[in-house]
Amino acid sequence: MKLIGYFRSSAAFRVRIALNLKGVAVEHASRHLRKGEQAAPDYVALNPQKLVPAMVLDSGDVLTQSLAILEYLEEVHPEPPLLPGDPADRARVRALALICTADIHPIQNLRVMAYLRDNFGQSEESAFAWSRHWIDTGFEAYEASVAGDRKTGTFSHGDRPTMADLCLIPQVFNAARFKVDMKKYPTIQRIFEASMKLPAFDAAQPSRQPDAEP
Amino acid sequence: MKLIGYFRSSAAFRVRIALNLKGVAVEHASRHLRKGEQAAPDYVALNPQKLVPAMVLDSGDVLTQSLAILEYLEEVHPEPPLLPGDPADRARVRALALICTADIHPIQNLRVMAYLRDNFGQSEESAFAWSRHWIDTGFEAYEASVAGDRKTGTFSHGDRPTMADLCLIPQVFNAARFKVDMKKYPTIQRIFEASMKLPAFDAAQPSRQPDAEP
Repeated sequence: MKLIGYFRSSAAFRVRIALNLKGVAVEHASRHLRKGEQAAPDYVALNPQKLVPAMVLDSGDVLTQSLAILEYLEEVHPEPPLLPGDPADRARVRALALICTADIHPIQNLRVMAYLRDNFGQSEESAFAWSRHWIDTGFEAYEASVAGDRKTGTFSHGDRPTMADLCLIPQVFNAARFKVDMKKYPTIQRIFEASMKLPAFDAAQPSRQPDAEP
Repeated sequence: MKLIGYFRSSAAFRVRIALNLKGVAVEHASRHLRKGEQAAPDYVALNPQKLVPAMVLDSGDVLTQSLAILEYLEEVHPEPPLLPGDPADRARVRALALICTADIHPIQNLRVMAYLRDNFGQSEESAFAWSRHWIDTGFEAYEASVAGDRKTGTFSHGDRPTMADLCLIPQVFNAARFKVDMKKYPTIQRIFEASMKLPAFDAAQPSRQPDAEP
Protein backbone atom coordinates (compact mmCIF):
# COMPACT_ATOMS: atom_id res chain seq x y z
CA MET A 1 0.00 0.00 0.00
CA LYS A 2 1.07 3.55 -0.66
CA LEU A 3 -0.24 6.64 1.11
CA ILE A 4 0.03 9.84 -0.89
CA GLY A 5 -0.19 12.78 1.49
CA TYR A 6 1.38 16.07 2.49
CA PHE A 7 3.06 16.76 5.79
CA ARG A 8 0.71 19.57 6.80
CA SER A 9 -2.56 18.04 5.53
CA SER A 10 -4.93 17.38 8.44
CA ALA A 11 -6.61 14.68 6.38
CA ALA A 12 -3.35 12.81 5.70
CA PHE A 13 -2.38 13.26 9.38
CA ARG A 14 -5.54 11.38 10.46
CA VAL A 15 -4.62 8.42 8.26
CA ARG A 16 -0.99 8.40 9.45
CA ILE A 17 -2.16 8.08 13.06
CA ALA A 18 -4.44 5.15 12.16
CA LEU A 19 -1.65 3.35 10.32
CA ASN A 20 0.68 3.85 13.28
CA LEU A 21 -1.89 2.68 15.86
CA LYS A 22 -2.70 -0.43 13.84
CA GLY A 23 0.92 -1.12 12.99
CA VAL A 24 0.30 -1.14 9.24
CA ALA A 25 3.41 -0.30 7.22
CA VAL A 26 2.89 1.60 3.97
CA GLU A 27 5.06 3.40 1.47
CA HIS A 28 4.73 7.17 1.86
CA ALA A 29 4.65 9.67 -0.98
CA SER A 30 3.83 13.35 -0.97
CA ARG A 31 2.23 16.02 -3.14
CA HIS A 32 3.20 19.58 -2.34
CA LEU A 33 -0.15 21.32 -1.95
CA ARG A 34 1.16 24.88 -1.96
CA LYS A 35 2.97 24.16 -5.23
CA GLY A 36 -0.25 22.71 -6.66
CA GLU A 37 1.17 19.24 -7.25
CA GLN A 38 -2.22 17.71 -6.38
CA ALA A 39 -3.53 19.12 -9.67
CA ALA A 40 -0.91 17.37 -11.84
CA PRO A 41 -2.52 15.01 -14.40
CA ASP A 42 -0.93 11.86 -12.94
CA TYR A 43 -2.45 12.65 -9.54
CA VAL A 44 -5.85 13.71 -10.91
CA ALA A 45 -5.99 10.31 -12.63
CA LEU A 46 -5.76 8.78 -9.14
CA ASN A 47 -8.01 11.28 -7.38
CA PRO A 48 -10.21 13.56 -9.50
CA GLN A 49 -10.92 15.61 -6.35
CA LYS A 50 -7.32 16.92 -6.41
CA LEU A 51 -7.12 16.51 -2.65
CA VAL A 52 -4.83 14.44 -0.46
CA PRO A 53 -4.67 11.81 0.86
CA ALA A 54 -5.06 8.97 -1.59
CA MET A 55 -4.18 5.42 -0.67
CA VAL A 56 -3.16 3.02 -3.42
CA LEU A 57 -3.87 -0.59 -2.51
CA ASP A 58 -1.76 -3.49 -3.74
CA SER A 59 -4.78 -4.49 -5.87
CA GLY A 60 -4.46 -1.18 -7.71
CA ASP A 61 -7.66 0.21 -6.15
CA VAL A 62 -7.27 3.83 -5.08
CA LEU A 63 -9.01 4.95 -1.89
CA THR A 64 -9.71 8.63 -1.28
CA GLN A 65 -11.31 10.72 1.50
CA SER A 66 -9.62 10.26 4.87
CA LEU A 67 -12.75 9.09 6.72
CA ALA A 68 -13.42 6.43 4.08
CA ILE A 69 -9.79 5.31 4.42
CA LEU A 70 -10.11 5.17 8.23
CA GLU A 71 -13.24 3.00 7.94
CA TYR A 72 -11.41 0.75 5.45
CA LEU A 73 -8.46 0.32 7.79
CA GLU A 74 -10.86 -0.45 10.64
CA GLU A 75 -12.55 -3.17 8.56
CA VAL A 76 -9.38 -4.76 7.21
CA HIS A 77 -7.12 -4.30 10.26
CA PRO A 78 -9.59 -4.36 13.17
CA GLU A 79 -7.00 -4.31 15.97
CA PRO A 80 -6.76 -2.12 17.95
CA PRO A 81 -10.31 -0.89 17.24
CA LEU A 82 -10.87 2.77 16.42
CA LEU A 83 -14.60 2.46 17.02
CA PRO A 84 -16.42 1.10 20.09
CA GLY A 85 -18.74 -1.90 19.83
CA ASP A 86 -22.19 -0.48 20.57
CA PRO A 87 -23.94 1.11 17.55
CA ALA A 88 -25.01 4.26 19.45
CA ASP A 89 -21.45 4.66 20.78
CA ARG A 90 -20.08 4.18 17.27
CA ALA A 91 -22.45 6.92 16.13
CA ARG A 92 -21.17 9.19 18.91
CA VAL A 93 -17.56 8.68 17.83
CA ARG A 94 -18.35 9.18 14.16
CA ALA A 95 -20.36 12.34 14.91
CA LEU A 96 -17.43 13.80 16.86
CA ALA A 97 -15.10 12.93 14.00
CA LEU A 98 -17.45 14.62 11.54
CA ILE A 99 -17.50 17.88 13.53
CA CYS A 100 -13.84 18.23 12.51
CA THR A 101 -13.83 16.53 9.12
CA ALA A 102 -17.08 17.92 7.68
CA ASP A 103 -17.91 21.07 9.61
CA ILE A 104 -14.53 22.65 10.32
CA HIS A 105 -11.76 21.52 8.03
CA PRO A 106 -13.40 21.76 4.56
CA ILE A 107 -14.50 25.35 5.26
CA GLN A 108 -11.03 26.59 6.07
CA ASN A 109 -8.70 24.54 3.93
CA LEU A 110 -6.22 25.88 1.43
CA ARG A 111 -8.50 26.09 -1.60
CA VAL A 112 -11.26 27.92 0.30
CA MET A 113 -8.79 30.43 1.75
CA ALA A 114 -7.50 31.01 -1.79
CA TYR A 115 -11.03 31.77 -3.00
CA LEU A 116 -11.54 34.34 -0.22
CA ARG A 117 -8.39 36.15 -1.27
CA ASP A 118 -8.69 35.80 -5.05
CA ASN A 119 -12.44 36.32 -5.52
CA PHE A 120 -13.52 38.38 -2.52
CA GLY A 121 -10.29 40.38 -2.13
CA GLN A 122 -10.02 39.45 1.53
CA SER A 123 -6.76 40.12 3.36
CA GLU A 124 -4.65 37.43 5.01
CA GLU A 125 -5.88 38.73 8.36
CA SER A 126 -9.50 38.50 7.31
CA ALA A 127 -9.01 34.97 5.97
CA PHE A 128 -7.40 34.03 9.30
CA ALA A 129 -10.41 35.43 11.19
CA TRP A 130 -12.68 33.33 8.96
CA SER A 131 -10.65 30.24 9.77
CA ARG A 132 -10.70 30.95 13.48
CA HIS A 133 -14.47 31.51 13.36
CA TRP A 134 -15.17 28.04 11.94
CA ILE A 135 -12.67 26.34 14.21
CA ASP A 136 -14.20 28.09 17.23
CA THR A 137 -17.73 27.21 16.11
CA GLY A 138 -16.77 23.56 15.77
CA PHE A 139 -14.64 23.38 18.91
CA GLU A 140 -17.40 24.99 21.02
CA ALA A 141 -19.70 22.17 19.91
CA TYR A 142 -17.00 19.53 20.41
CA GLU A 143 -16.16 20.80 23.88
CA ALA A 144 -19.87 20.91 24.86
CA SER A 145 -20.26 17.35 23.53
CA VAL A 146 -17.36 15.82 25.47
CA ALA A 147 -17.21 17.92 28.67
CA GLY A 148 -19.26 16.31 31.37
CA ASP A 149 -20.40 13.36 29.26
CA ARG A 150 -19.71 10.16 31.20
CA LYS A 151 -18.74 8.45 27.92
CA THR A 152 -15.75 10.74 27.63
CA GLY A 153 -12.62 9.34 29.26
CA THR A 154 -8.93 9.96 28.80
CA PHE A 155 -9.85 10.32 25.15
CA SER A 156 -12.98 11.60 23.39
CA HIS A 157 -14.72 8.27 23.93
CA GLY A 158 -13.42 6.09 26.73
CA ASP A 159 -9.83 5.44 27.63
CA ARG A 160 -8.30 4.59 24.32
CA PRO A 161 -8.09 6.57 21.12
CA THR A 162 -10.91 6.38 18.60
CA MET A 163 -11.60 7.82 15.18
CA ALA A 164 -12.79 10.97 16.97
CA ASP A 165 -9.33 11.66 18.40
CA LEU A 166 -7.68 10.88 15.07
CA CYS A 167 -9.70 13.72 13.56
CA LEU A 168 -9.54 16.08 16.56
CA ILE A 169 -5.78 16.14 17.07
CA PRO A 170 -4.86 17.31 13.52
CA GLN A 171 -7.53 19.99 13.89
CA VAL A 172 -5.85 21.20 17.11
CA PHE A 173 -2.54 21.48 15.21
CA ASN A 174 -4.37 23.46 12.55
CA ALA A 175 -5.97 25.67 15.24
CA ALA A 176 -2.50 26.55 16.56
CA ARG A 177 -1.53 27.85 13.12
CA PHE A 178 -4.53 30.17 13.21
CA LYS A 179 -3.84 31.23 16.81
CA VAL A 180 -7.08 29.87 18.28
CA ASP A 181 -7.22 30.37 22.06
CA MET A 182 -7.30 26.78 23.34
CA LYS A 183 -7.94 27.90 26.94
CA LYS A 184 -11.60 28.02 25.96
CA TYR A 185 -11.54 24.26 25.33
CA PRO A 186 -10.08 22.57 28.41
CA THR A 187 -11.42 19.10 27.60
CA ILE A 188 -10.13 19.21 24.03
CA GLN A 189 -6.77 20.45 25.32
CA ARG A 190 -6.62 17.63 27.87
CA ILE A 191 -7.40 15.02 25.20
CA PHE A 192 -4.79 16.60 22.93
CA GLU A 193 -2.11 16.31 25.60
CA ALA A 194 -3.03 12.69 26.36
CA SER A 195 -2.95 11.82 22.67
CA MET A 196 0.39 13.43 21.95
CA LYS A 197 2.00 11.25 24.62
CA LEU A 198 1.29 8.24 22.41
CA PRO A 199 4.03 7.40 19.90
CA ALA A 200 1.42 6.75 17.16
CA PHE A 201 0.24 10.37 17.35
CA ASP A 202 3.66 11.86 17.93
CA ALA A 203 5.24 10.17 14.93
CA ALA A 204 2.36 11.21 12.69
CA GLN A 205 2.64 14.94 13.34
CA PRO A 206 3.58 17.24 10.46
CA SER A 207 7.08 18.17 11.65
CA ARG A 208 8.12 14.51 11.79
CA GLN A 209 7.32 13.77 8.13
CA PRO A 210 10.06 13.44 5.50
CA ASP A 211 8.51 16.23 3.41
CA ALA A 212 8.22 18.63 6.38
CA GLU A 213 9.26 22.24 5.95
CA PRO A 214 10.07 24.72 8.71
CA MET B 1 -37.21 7.18 17.47
CA LYS B 2 -37.67 10.79 16.50
CA LEU B 3 -35.92 12.57 13.65
CA ILE B 4 -35.57 16.32 14.08
CA GLY B 5 -34.95 17.88 10.69
CA TYR B 6 -36.00 20.64 8.34
CA PHE B 7 -37.68 20.14 4.99
CA ARG B 8 -34.94 21.81 2.97
CA SER B 9 -31.93 20.46 4.89
CA SER B 10 -29.79 18.25 2.64
CA ALA B 11 -28.50 16.43 5.72
CA ALA B 12 -32.00 15.60 6.99
CA PHE B 13 -33.02 14.59 3.44
CA ARG B 14 -30.24 11.95 3.39
CA VAL B 15 -31.56 10.39 6.60
CA ARG B 16 -35.19 10.46 5.40
CA ILE B 17 -34.21 8.45 2.31
CA ALA B 18 -32.42 5.85 4.45
CA LEU B 19 -35.41 5.49 6.78
CA ASN B 20 -37.73 5.06 3.79
CA LEU B 21 -35.48 2.50 2.07
CA LYS B 22 -35.12 0.46 5.24
CA GLY B 23 -38.77 0.80 6.17
CA VAL B 24 -38.02 2.28 9.59
CA ALA B 25 -40.88 4.38 10.94
CA VAL B 26 -39.94 7.38 13.09
CA GLU B 27 -41.69 10.41 14.48
CA HIS B 28 -40.75 13.53 12.55
CA ALA B 29 -40.15 16.95 14.06
CA SER B 30 -38.74 20.11 12.51
CA ARG B 31 -36.65 23.13 13.41
CA HIS B 32 -37.07 26.12 11.13
CA LEU B 33 -33.48 26.95 10.17
CA ARG B 34 -34.19 30.34 8.60
CA LYS B 35 -35.97 31.39 11.79
CA GLY B 36 -32.99 30.19 13.85
CA GLU B 37 -34.95 27.57 15.79
CA GLN B 38 -31.88 25.28 15.79
CA ALA B 39 -30.23 27.74 18.21
CA ALA B 40 -33.01 27.52 20.84
CA PRO B 41 -31.72 26.26 24.21
CA ASP B 42 -33.85 23.09 24.17
CA TYR B 43 -32.36 22.09 20.82
CA VAL B 44 -28.79 23.06 21.71
CA ALA B 45 -29.14 20.74 24.72
CA LEU B 46 -29.74 17.92 22.22
CA ASN B 47 -27.19 19.04 19.64
CA PRO B 48 -24.56 21.62 20.67
CA GLN B 49 -23.65 21.96 16.98
CA LYS B 50 -26.97 23.75 16.34
CA LEU B 51 -27.37 21.82 13.11
CA VAL B 52 -30.05 19.42 11.92
CA PRO B 53 -30.68 16.54 11.84
CA ALA B 54 -30.66 15.00 15.28
CA MET B 55 -32.15 11.59 15.93
CA VAL B 56 -33.45 10.80 19.40
CA LEU B 57 -33.40 7.07 20.12
CA ASP B 58 -35.92 5.35 22.39
CA SER B 59 -33.03 4.89 24.86
CA GLY B 60 -32.72 8.67 25.08
CA ASP B 61 -29.39 8.73 23.23
CA VAL B 62 -29.22 11.55 20.70
CA LEU B 63 -27.44 10.91 17.42
CA THR B 64 -26.16 13.80 15.33
CA GLN B 65 -24.35 14.21 12.00
CA SER B 66 -26.21 12.66 9.08
CA LEU B 67 -23.39 10.31 8.02
CA ALA B 68 -23.07 8.95 11.55
CA ILE B 69 -26.84 8.40 11.59
CA LEU B 70 -26.68 6.61 8.22
CA GLU B 71 -23.93 4.29 9.51
CA TYR B 72 -26.01 3.64 12.65
CA LEU B 73 -29.09 2.75 10.61
CA GLU B 74 -26.95 0.46 8.45
CA GLU B 75 -25.66 -1.35 11.54
CA VAL B 76 -29.00 -1.67 13.33
CA HIS B 77 -31.25 -2.18 10.29
CA PRO B 78 -28.94 -3.88 7.79
CA GLU B 79 -31.58 -4.60 5.12
CA PRO B 80 -31.53 -3.46 2.41
CA PRO B 81 -27.81 -2.65 2.66
CA LEU B 82 -26.63 0.86 1.85
CA LEU B 83 -23.02 -0.27 1.59
CA PRO B 84 -21.57 -3.09 -0.55
CA GLY B 85 -19.78 -6.03 1.05
CA ASP B 86 -16.18 -5.65 -0.11
CA PRO B 87 -14.07 -3.25 2.02
CA ALA B 88 -12.56 -1.44 -0.99
CA ASP B 89 -16.04 -1.06 -2.50
CA ARG B 90 -17.36 0.24 0.81
CA ALA B 91 -14.54 2.78 0.79
CA ARG B 92 -15.51 3.82 -2.75
CA VAL B 93 -19.12 4.41 -1.69
CA ARG B 94 -18.11 6.30 1.45
CA ALA B 95 -15.65 8.47 -0.50
CA LEU B 96 -18.36 9.41 -3.00
CA ALA B 97 -20.71 10.24 -0.12
CA LEU B 98 -18.02 12.41 1.46
CA ILE B 99 -17.52 14.45 -1.72
CA CYS B 100 -21.02 15.80 -1.08
CA THR B 101 -21.18 15.72 2.70
CA ALA B 102 -17.70 17.04 3.53
CA ASP B 103 -16.44 18.89 0.47
CA ILE B 104 -19.54 20.55 -0.96
CA HIS B 105 -22.39 20.98 1.49
CA PRO B 106 -20.61 22.40 4.58
CA ILE B 107 -18.95 25.11 2.46
CA GLN B 108 -22.20 26.44 1.06
CA ASN B 109 -24.75 25.90 3.80
CA LEU B 110 -26.90 28.56 5.40
CA ARG B 111 -24.49 29.67 8.13
CA VAL B 112 -21.55 30.03 5.74
CA MET B 113 -23.60 32.05 3.27
CA ALA B 114 -24.66 34.29 6.18
CA TYR B 115 -21.00 34.90 7.07
CA LEU B 116 -20.19 35.92 3.49
CA ARG B 117 -22.96 38.50 3.55
CA ASP B 118 -22.58 39.75 7.12
CA ASN B 119 -18.79 39.78 7.48
CA PHE B 120 -17.51 40.16 3.93
CA GLY B 121 -20.38 42.31 2.61
CA GLN B 122 -20.93 39.98 -0.33
CA SER B 123 -24.10 40.33 -2.39
CA GLU B 124 -26.68 37.57 -2.79
CA GLU B 125 -25.36 37.13 -6.34
CA SER B 126 -21.79 36.77 -5.16
CA ALA B 127 -22.80 34.26 -2.46
CA PHE B 128 -24.68 32.29 -5.13
CA ALA B 129 -21.56 32.23 -7.32
CA TRP B 130 -19.57 30.94 -4.34
CA SER B 131 -22.10 28.18 -3.83
CA ARG B 132 -22.08 27.21 -7.49
CA HIS B 133 -18.28 27.15 -7.48
CA TRP B 134 -18.09 24.55 -4.70
CA ILE B 135 -20.94 22.49 -6.11
CA ASP B 136 -19.25 22.50 -9.54
CA THR B 137 -15.87 21.61 -8.00
CA GLY B 138 -17.40 18.67 -6.18
CA PHE B 139 -19.64 17.52 -9.03
CA GLU B 140 -16.75 17.60 -11.52
CA ALA B 141 -14.89 15.19 -9.23
CA TYR B 142 -17.99 13.06 -8.64
CA GLU B 143 -18.75 12.86 -12.36
CA ALA B 144 -15.13 11.93 -13.16
CA SER B 145 -15.26 9.27 -10.42
CA VAL B 146 -18.43 7.55 -11.64
CA ALA B 147 -18.39 8.07 -15.42
CA GLY B 148 -16.71 5.16 -17.11
CA ASP B 149 -15.98 3.25 -13.90
CA ARG B 150 -17.25 -0.30 -14.32
CA LYS B 151 -18.37 -0.29 -10.67
CA THR B 152 -20.94 2.39 -11.48
CA GLY B 153 -24.31 0.94 -12.47
CA THR B 154 -27.83 2.29 -12.47
CA PHE B 155 -26.73 4.04 -9.29
CA SER B 156 -23.36 5.40 -8.13
CA HIS B 157 -22.23 1.94 -7.12
CA GLY B 158 -23.97 -1.00 -8.78
CA ASP B 159 -27.63 -1.37 -9.47
CA ARG B 160 -29.16 -0.46 -6.16
CA PRO B 161 -28.92 2.70 -4.12
CA THR B 162 -26.07 3.13 -1.64
CA MET B 163 -25.04 5.77 0.86
CA ALA B 164 -23.40 7.61 -2.06
CA ASP B 165 -26.76 8.18 -3.78
CA LEU B 166 -28.40 9.17 -0.49
CA CYS B 167 -25.88 12.02 -0.27
CA LEU B 168 -25.77 12.86 -3.99
CA ILE B 169 -29.50 13.32 -4.61
CA PRO B 170 -30.07 16.02 -1.92
CA GLN B 171 -27.02 17.81 -3.31
CA VAL B 172 -28.59 17.79 -6.79
CA PHE B 173 -31.73 19.39 -5.33
CA ASN B 174 -29.51 21.99 -3.69
CA ALA B 175 -27.68 22.55 -7.02
CA ALA B 176 -30.99 23.33 -8.70
CA ARG B 177 -31.61 26.13 -6.19
CA PHE B 178 -28.27 27.65 -7.15
CA LYS B 179 -28.90 27.17 -10.88
CA VAL B 180 -26.00 24.80 -11.50
CA ASP B 181 -25.93 23.62 -15.12
CA MET B 182 -26.47 19.87 -14.76
CA LYS B 183 -25.81 19.22 -18.47
CA LYS B 184 -22.14 19.15 -17.49
CA TYR B 185 -22.78 16.08 -15.32
CA PRO B 186 -24.62 13.50 -17.44
CA THR B 187 -23.85 10.54 -15.19
CA ILE B 188 -24.98 12.37 -12.04
CA GLN B 189 -28.12 13.48 -13.87
CA ARG B 190 -28.82 9.89 -14.99
CA ILE B 191 -28.37 8.59 -11.41
CA PHE B 192 -30.60 11.40 -10.13
CA GLU B 193 -33.40 10.45 -12.53
CA ALA B 194 -33.13 6.74 -11.65
CA SER B 195 -33.19 7.55 -7.93
CA MET B 196 -36.20 9.84 -8.09
CA LYS B 197 -38.24 7.03 -9.65
CA LEU B 198 -37.95 5.17 -6.34
CA PRO B 199 -40.70 5.95 -3.80
CA ALA B 200 -38.12 6.12 -0.97
CA PHE B 201 -36.37 9.06 -2.64
CA ASP B 202 -39.52 10.70 -3.93
CA ALA B 203 -41.25 10.73 -0.54
CA ALA B 204 -38.14 12.15 1.15
CA GLN B 205 -37.83 15.24 -1.04
CA PRO B 206 -38.29 18.66 0.55
CA SER B 207 -41.62 19.56 -1.06
CA ARG B 208 -43.26 16.42 0.33
CA GLN B 209 -42.46 17.18 3.98
CA PRO B 210 -45.12 18.45 6.39
CA ASP B 211 -43.05 21.56 7.17
CA ALA B 212 -42.48 22.39 3.47
CA GLU B 213 -42.90 25.97 2.29
CA PRO B 214 -43.41 27.14 -1.29
